[in-house]
Amino acid sequence: MNKPSILKPHFTMRFNAAWLVLAFIACLSISGAQAADDPLPSWNDGPAKQAILAFVKETTTPGSPKFVPPAERIATFDQDGTLWVEHPVYSQVVYCLERVPAVVKAKPELASQEPFKTVMSGDREAIAKLSMDQLLKIVAATLTGMDVDAFNAEAEQWLSTAKNARWDQLYTDLTYLPMQEVMEYLRANGYKTYIVTGGGQDFVRVYSERVYGVPREQVVGTAGETKYGYRKDGTPFLTKEPKLLLDNNDAGKPEGIHLMIGRRPYAAFGNSTGDRQMLEYTKAGDGARLSMMLLHDDAKREYAYGPAQGLPDTKVGTLTQALYDEAQKQGWIVISMKTDWNRIFAFEEGQD
Amino acid sequence: MNKPSILKPHFTMRFNAAWLVLAFIACLSISGAQAADDPLPSWNDGPAKQAILAFVKETTTPGSPKFVPPAERIATFDQDGTLWVEHPVYSQVVYCLERVPAVVKAKPELASQEPFKTVMSGDREAIAKLSMDQLLKIVAATLTGMDVDAFNAEAEQWLSTAKNARWDQLYTDLTYLPMQEVMEYLRANGYKTYIVTGGGQDFVRVYSERVYGVPREQVVGTAGETKYGYRKDGTPFLTKEPKLLLDNNDAGKPEGIHLMIGRRPYAAFGNSTGDRQMLEYTKAGDGARLSMMLLHDDAKREYAYGPAQGLPDTKVGTLTQALYDEAQKQGWIVISMKTDWNRIFAFEEGQD
Repeated sequence: MNKPSILKPHFTMRFNAAWLVLAFIACLSISGAQAADDPLPSWNDGPAKQAILAFVKETTTPGSPKFVPPAERIATFDQDGTLWVEHPVYSQVVYCLERVPAVVKAKPELASQEPFKTVMSGDREAIAKLSMDQLLKIVAATLTGMDVDAFNAEAEQWLSTAKNARWDQLYTDLTYLPMQEVMEYLRANGYKTYIVTGGGQDFVRVYSERVYGVPREQVVGTAGETKYGYRKDGTPFLTKEPKLLLDNNDAGKPEGIHLMIGRRPYAAFGNSTGDRQMLEYTKAGDGARLSMMLLHDDAKREYAYGPAQGLPDTKVGTLTQALYDEAQKQGWIVISMKTDWNRIFAFEEGQD
Repeated sequence: MNKPSILKPHFTMRFNAAWLVLAFIACLSISGAQAADDPLPSWNDGPAKQAILAFVKETTTPGSPKFVPPAERIATFDQDGTLWVEHPVYSQVVYCLERVPAVVKAKPELASQEPFKTVMSGDREAIAKLSMDQLLKIVAATLTGMDVDAFNAEAEQWLSTAKNARWDQLYTDLTYLPMQEVMEYLRANGYKTYIVTGGGQDFVRVYSERVYGVPREQVVGTAGETKYGYRKDGTPFLTKEPKLLLDNNDAGKPEGIHLMIGRRPYAAFGNSTGDRQMLEYTKAGDGARLSMMLLHDDAKREYAYGPAQGLPDTKVGTLTQALYDEAQKQGWIVISMKTDWNRIFAFEEGQD
């Protein structure tokens, strides 16, 4: 960082040891104050951090040619792989698989039917080989056909106890501290932060407020239909139906943003091909627009995956070479987890 | 209203003429202050006004057994017939009919096809007899097949110039002042106010912020799909498609609320059979819930319609006898426009 210019006049004065000591103390206390005032302490200085700071400054400083009125300040964040760990498997898929025994208990005839039979066998290798169609059957069986309040209670229960194997932490603690800082910093500057996820809208809403400070109504996700009906006592309730209403991936992201928000974001954050259209759509707006893409290139502290820069391809969150090239061409900013973040999780100690 | 108790000690002092004059002046200035503090000055005192005041007090006073945390304070308002005039025809239908000449100019082959031929004839009686299917054809032709930004610009242009015949006012000035006061009062007490309308979501979003103080993202309405695509220069854009995604009427209202907000409202306001499920769903929640229904019973200042209480039936905004009976049974509060409102529009002088 450049030293604050306020110190420069001192050095034009006659040099002596006392001045040197005073200047040294001043530097110490000012850099201490800078650290305390730094809204992004988990970010190393570099183009990614500078892009965020510059964007906020130019869109929120009154009189700036790129000033954005508060009502229009919208920032959208993909979740899996952008706000929290997605590798080697999405947390919501783990949730669905772990709910299978309860579903089979309620409908014993499923025990002998695939893909439920494989899941009940506990054979990890066989489960990992389930096809997308089979996974969708599991998703439909475990996430639909129930009252929305019952769904919320079950998801809440799982999220408050289930832990990730690698870190032995709750899934909701596997959020990236640097991204939490960006959300907080944007909100402190009048931005409404939205999660725009390919994951299930109802699932993410269960914890979005507690984990990210994002209220339920600011979660846009893949959503099924619900059906209004009445219990025997006449009380109305909503049932989750196995019919897809909004596939919030790829082009579905800007379409979902139009449906649920009705404004083009000024800033968008993603990490994979499923976020491409959201990043394009955001960056194509007029004025200052910030599109950022997280590169998972830190095998030691988290994971390294995606074929960009020679990293191995995986099934989840693919940042392809084509997407990486588009980022360069369109002026999106690539965030290197390895280089740009000095700390990844809140439960870990910071490192410089 | 009770006089403030602070005055009482004065009357225990020795009575004399000077005290009487002082007390009289104090009463005058205090009742002036009370009028200024009334959050609902266009409402006459009565059960409807009292229900609103009591609801806000018991849900927002810390320590109240029915206190609602700020994040959960959601209030939903139907628009047509609840927030603004819907009789004798919805403003958006007028908009669609008035856009027909431009559509026919762009596609001249439509001039000889029904229902466009009838609309172009200008024959008001024939237009009034168009079937629902024919009206939907007009809606599809005038509201879809265009870029969302072009749609916004056209709707904005119409709304800033088109006037209602009876009052010679812009449609956006035909909003009910007492309902504006309720929205403002709820917001001042930490409620997020949403419009939940059977009308077109994109159409209402054009003016919701300016007219009601409701941001675009807090409008839930009937919505079609959009389609993400690219212009010849590679710029991405969204096109409004003629395919219905969310029919935000009847059971579609609680379903739309779940999709777009994800929380059950604590207060809901409607006026017709299309609002029944929203009012039911709101009232069925636990704690304090307020469901209110506006009865159009003021033929002189606005309109009187709906078969409840012997008013004539109409095509729009029907408050049926069955709905009126359900209101009584479920504890919804019926607002009588004639009795409860001392003023209807901001452009008119107040009357007591």
